[in-house]
Amino acid sequence: MLENKNTQRTTLAELGEFGLINHLTKHFTIQNSSTFKGVGDDAAVLKSTKKQTLITTDLLIEGVHFDLSYMPLKHLGYKAVMVNLSDVYAMNGKAEQITVSVAVSNRFSLEALEELYAGIQLACNTYKIDLIGGDTTSSTKGMLLSITAIGTAKKSDVVYRNTAKPTDLIVVSGDLGAAYLGLQVLEREKQVFQVNPKNQPDLDNYTYLIERQLKPEARKDVVEILAELDVKPTAMIDVSDGLSSEIMHICSQSNVGCKIYEDKIPLDPQVISTCEEFNMDSTMVALSGGEDYELLFTVAISDFDKIKANPNFTIIGHITEKNQGINLVTRADQEIELKAQGWNALKE
Amino acid sequence: MLENKNTQRTTLAELGEFGLINHLTKHFTIQNSSTFKGVGDDAAVLKSTKKQTLITTDLLIEGVHFDLSYMPLKHLGYKAVMVNLSDVYAMNGKAEQITVSVAVSNRFSLEALEELYAGIQLACNTYKIDLIGGDTTSSTKGMLLSITAIGTAKKSDVVYRNTAKPTDLIVVSGDLGAAYLGLQVLEREKQVFQVNPKNQPDLDNYTYLIERQLKPEARKDVVEILAELDVKPTAMIDVSDGLSSEIMHICSQSNVGCKIYEDKIPLDPQVISTCEEFNMDSTMVALSGGEDYELLFTVAISDFDKIKANPNFTIIGHITEKNQGINLVTRADQEIELKAQGWNALKE
Repeated sequence: MLENKNTQRTTLAELGEFGLINHLTKHFTIQNSSTFKGVGDDAAVLKSTKKQTLITTDLLIEGVHFDLSYMPLKHLGYKAVMVNLSDVYAMNGKAEQITVSVAVSNRFSLEALEELYAGIQLACNTYKIDLIGGDTTSSTKGMLLSITAIGTAKKSDVVYRNTAKPTDLIVVSGDLGAAYLGLQVLEREKQVFQVNPKNQPDLDNYTYLIERQLKPEARKDVVEILAELDVKPTAMIDVSDGLSSEIMHICSQSNVGCKIYEDKIPLDPQVISTCEEFNMDSTMVALSGGEDYELLFTVAISDFDKIKANPNFTIIGHITEKNQGINLVTRADQEIELKAQGWNALKE
Repeated sequence: MLENKNTQRTTLAELGEFGLINHLTKHFTIQNSSTFKGVGDDAAVLKSTKKQTLITTDLLIEGVHFDLSYMPLKHLGYKAVMVNLSDVYAMNGKAEQITVSVAVSNRFSLEALEELYAGIQLACNTYKIDLIGGDTTSSTKGMLLSITAIGTAKKSDVVYRNTAKPTDLIVVSGDLGAAYLGLQVLEREKQVFQVNPKNQPDLDNYTYLIERQLKPEARKDVVEILAELDVKPTAMIDVSDGLSSEIMHICSQSNVGCKIYEDKIPLDPQVISTCEEFNMDSTMVALSGGEDYELLFTVAISDFDKIKANPNFTIIGHITEKNQGINLVTRADQEIELKAQGWNALKE
């Protein structure tokens, strides 16, 4: 279903490094007035600003973070940008620029890189981001991507992880667990395909899960909605490694505890039905799955009325004193201590 | 001679990703007032500034850009920072922050990463740079490093590549070709070692060359000297791919030609003697060698008196009208057209 049907092949050496960068970036346009000079010099130049500058970076490696047997290159490019923008939004900032470094082995053609950059460009156009620099080189194995995102925020708007306070409400945008289940579905199809390449997969029951895995969206809209609601979160983080790991970051850095209520965790119906099919616990999937790229934040209890009715948000618990620990209150009303079981790229 | 004698081994999985980042970065201190928040949140935060912000990034891959059989990890860490700072200085800016992303296969121990970070820290301390973020993950093969450097400069101080004018003088700092020859010496020693591991290499005649290859310095001092001399270059670039490739960037982007005089190209005596030994042409080595990390810049002819007597600088030619081409004037007073033969990481 997702294999690359592109049969044209232009070798990268024919273009050379500078020709390649020019070729891949020539259709990108500058959309932010803060970008003074983009690709083409020793460094990119950003205009001076009265705001603070936000910088975040992520490294994505084939075989560790993505599998090209079911991740189309255009989707990979899009997702790699999302992963980075999400970190800027998690600071309550506006993402404005990215740099993109790519290394590929000689198994990749120019057409493959064009697909990757088409996804990067779609992300840039949709989120109004300028590509301002990067590096293109060869690797000895597979593809790897290193993206740095740059954003701005007024100093008084920046939201950190270490400023949650007891009694604050814990809120999450969207729903959790779908991206992880999407990965499980794709992995299963890959196994089936390897055994019987003629098998036509029926993925109609998993469309939302697969979209969340292959084409996640960073929650730029949440930052805008919060501004419209006149709510400044007391702490915020994006959900890349799973709810459990993220709430533990907020609690440990803020020196507080929390209670998360199992029955409040937002789950899509496809997550519930697919968990049943896969014989998995949906709460565990939401807690430890990761790659949701939703925003997890805390707000003062005085903001309850502004948040409670908003369909983008779910209140899933509250912050406590540190000595109360970091706990999940189960549907059976039992408290169990949360442990980070998020994804660990260093596990052997 | 250069193998890692460290026999302790702690696996990275024991620490986990966040434990590892904390462990590796805990001894780094913040040295720039512009760094508002470094490692530890979704993104780093820089203070607002009246200056422009400079951003540059480089990707370094084992087996493509470096060989750990003769590049000690501490040197690699130092050099990887230099490569990026050099690009900020080439804009006539002040480098202030870096992000460092590292991926390693499970052949690397914690102690190996500590060595790498010791080199990064030495570079940060020497050049007054703050490590503000990054990513640490596993690779399926070897080590790779992605560094982004951030700097500042007053808008009126930033120097681009595309602003050289006919009659401008072409100036280079330091000397050229030594880093490339250092690489040739180390490659030769590697071959000898593989044939006869008991051979004790005598590298006394190549100390400068090897230092230029293994521990290059970015020319922060040149930016400071130019400010003291009250000289603003009309165009500038750093010499990473060889003099020929760099002057061609300036000329093509500035829409001008140039004359470079072979007898003016600054060469260290070790470059001359080692070229004789290796039967290489020293001019070719300077033109195409690369990794010198010197600054190549153009100045208005009215600045001649300020530049000519400075021991850091050599005037090697001048800018011409475009229709005169990009030429080397040989010692025999012949003009030959320059071609970029710099290092191409995409060559198969």
